[in-house]
Amino acid sequence: MPSLVTPIRWQDEALQLLDQRILPMREEYVTCHSLQEAHTAIRDMVVRGAPCIGFSAIYALALSLKPTGVFRHEEWKRSSDFLKTARPTAVNLMYEVERVVNDVLRSFPDDSDIGKVRQHVLRDAASQVEGAYTKNLSMAETALAELTRLYGDRPLTLMTHCNTGVLACGVLGTALGVISHAHSKGRVAMVYADETRPYMQGSRLTAYELGREKIPYHLVVEGAASWLFTHKKVDAIFVGADRIAANGDTANKVGTSTLAIVARHFGIPFFVVAPLSSFDFSLPDGLGIEIELRNEEEILAYQGLPIAPMGAKALNPSFDVTPASLISGIISEKGLVRNPDTKSMGLFSGNSK
Amino acid sequence: MPSLVTPIRWQDEALQLLDQRILPMREEYVTCHSLQEAHTAIRDMVVRGAPCIGFSAIYALALSLKPTGVFRHEEWKRSSDFLKTARPTAVNLMYEVERVVNDVLRSFPDDSDIGKVRQHVLRDAASQVEGAYTKNLSMAETALAELTRLYGDRPLTLMTHCNTGVLACGVLGTALGVISHAHSKGRVAMVYADETRPYMQGSRLTAYELGREKIPYHLVVEGAASWLFTHKKVDAIFVGADRIAANGDTANKVGTSTLAIVARHFGIPFFVVAPLSSFDFSLPDGLGIEIELRNEEEILAYQGLPIAPMGAKALNPSFDVTPASLISGIISEKGLVRNPDTKSMGLFSGNSK
Repeated sequence: MPSLVTPIRWQDEALQLLDQRILPMREEYVTCHSLQEAHTAIRDMVVRGAPCIGFSAIYALALSLKPTGVFRHEEWKRSSDFLKTARPTAVNLMYEVERVVNDVLRSFPDDSDIGKVRQHVLRDAASQVEGAYTKNLSMAETALAELTRLYGDRPLTLMTHCNTGVLACGVLGTALGVISHAHSKGRVAMVYADETRPYMQGSRLTAYELGREKIPYHLVVEGAASWLFTHKKVDAIFVGADRIAANGDTANKVGTSTLAIVARHFGIPFFVVAPLSSFDFSLPDGLGIEIELRNEEEILAYQGLPIAPMGAKALNPSFDVTPASLISGIISEKGLVRNPDTKSMGLFSGNSK
Repeated sequence: MPSLVTPIRWQDEALQLLDQRILPMREEYVTCHSLQEAHTAIRDMVVRGAPCIGFSAIYALALSLKPTGVFRHEEWKRSSDFLKTARPTAVNLMYEVERVVNDVLRSFPDDSDIGKVRQHVLRDAASQVEGAYTKNLSMAETALAELTRLYGDRPLTLMTHCNTGVLACGVLGTALGVISHAHSKGRVAMVYADETRPYMQGSRLTAYELGREKIPYHLVVEGAASWLFTHKKVDAIFVGADRIAANGDTANKVGTSTLAIVARHFGIPFFVVAPLSSFDFSLPDGLGIEIELRNEEEILAYQGLPIAPMGAKALNPSFDVTPASLISGIISEKGLVRNPDTKSMGLFSGNSK
């Protein structure tokens, strides 16, 4: 799992979390020696991204277990209940804690050697990270094969939106993982990343990852998409997904659908890369996806500095829905579906005929 | 010429310029009692926009003339040469200074009553402002008539990009002038203004003008265009122009062409509003329009606060070219051309058959 950026690492019997709150200005790790310290770090958003939060939670549970002594079910349950309060709305945190807690309760009776339990939980964390990497790599390989089918093996100019790399996923990443993998195979000539207003994930995080991996890139404002596609040859665009409906309609960070429309106008292939856990086959299409309006302050000020006049009003949708008809292909760990629709999406649901 | 925002005014025998460098946080006028003070204000960018700079220059020339005494050609020429050094690359400044200087040299012999010359120059300034207002109002009336043709007389939801109002034009404005005029007729239900990255003219200036005129509005990030057109009914979009080619291709602030593509995808009428002085019939189409790449720092930092990592790279095109095929209509003081092409654009060049 080679990566120059490591948002989560286990070192000297402690959990180290890259502090994403101060990236890209400073690159500092928060070291957690105890469950309490890990709880604080997760609560205070040192880590972001569902997979990263999930991995951190498993390591936090390991920290609750002393290296020597006796394992107590009651104590273990108290620790896990406490950990879940770090981010009560993070579904992935709840899911991972429940899974590990129950697995351990089943595998180790009361009074077991606590050091063995700790080793078991640490092995579980490593195995989860490894499994995520395998899935992400498989998606990246599928994407690169599709690029080779389209363009042969020449170096490519790729574009992405928001941040979907190792900082979000803990390992390789989804859309940015494709770019990182293609670069490792010598297949990337240039990357364009848009800044991703209002929260600037492109400028702050994607630029940081690309820079660290020495991948050549330029940031652009989102309004420059038409200029970019007129003046530079962009071979393909890769984005992630927050949620994908049964017909392939894709909810993702605001700006995704706007970019997809401009890409289609210029005939540029537009791909969505997401693990199966992002697919929701209970939704027939994107119409059912509710879009949260976030605080307008994200648009009206930058790091406390006002941009707009006092009393200005803004609408700040967090996501948009890209219709399947604008998507050239959707890639998951099960493979690629070109020109997605309800029928072809059967590949992912296991309902393909 | 009713307007709640007055970027330039002549009061108590002095030129007062609204300091656009500190808008929208503070609303302060810089008062110029002398040519020297006006020169400094123009040089230091207190005013922006070609028309505003032109008007300021005429008032600055009036300030060079004492209320009583004798008019000297030599002194007059020295003053005008000095004024031109305030912004050596501002074409409109050069043009207005030359025009007024030569008019005065022709109209007033050496040793004339300098108070009469001063009054003449002040009348010229007022007449230029009045003439600009008449042109802008005529464009706004043409636009409103077109909206009435399309939608009847119901209140409308309109959108604009960048800042093209009284702060840029000194009077009413072009695209934002249409919105301001429609509002004065009770025809505006809601305005959406995009923030216009990277320089934030939408958030800083357009929001300021809309707020001052009590026009209901919301700012949106540019990436939210697709979300906006999916979830809100936008009746028409109005933008200005930096330069319009003979076939109607239009160079304007970066983001314009991206917005035009998304508008076309959703079938929303997209109008360009610009005075004849922005038309360049020597250019057959937009391919010949060179686009300046501005300093990447505008993208990488906000008011000195870094956004992206140290050493990040960005491409910062200042303009883009919207193809005529994406423009529903172009409006100048000569009227409206729908679905512009080289033939229909003859209305503006005087070559219409």
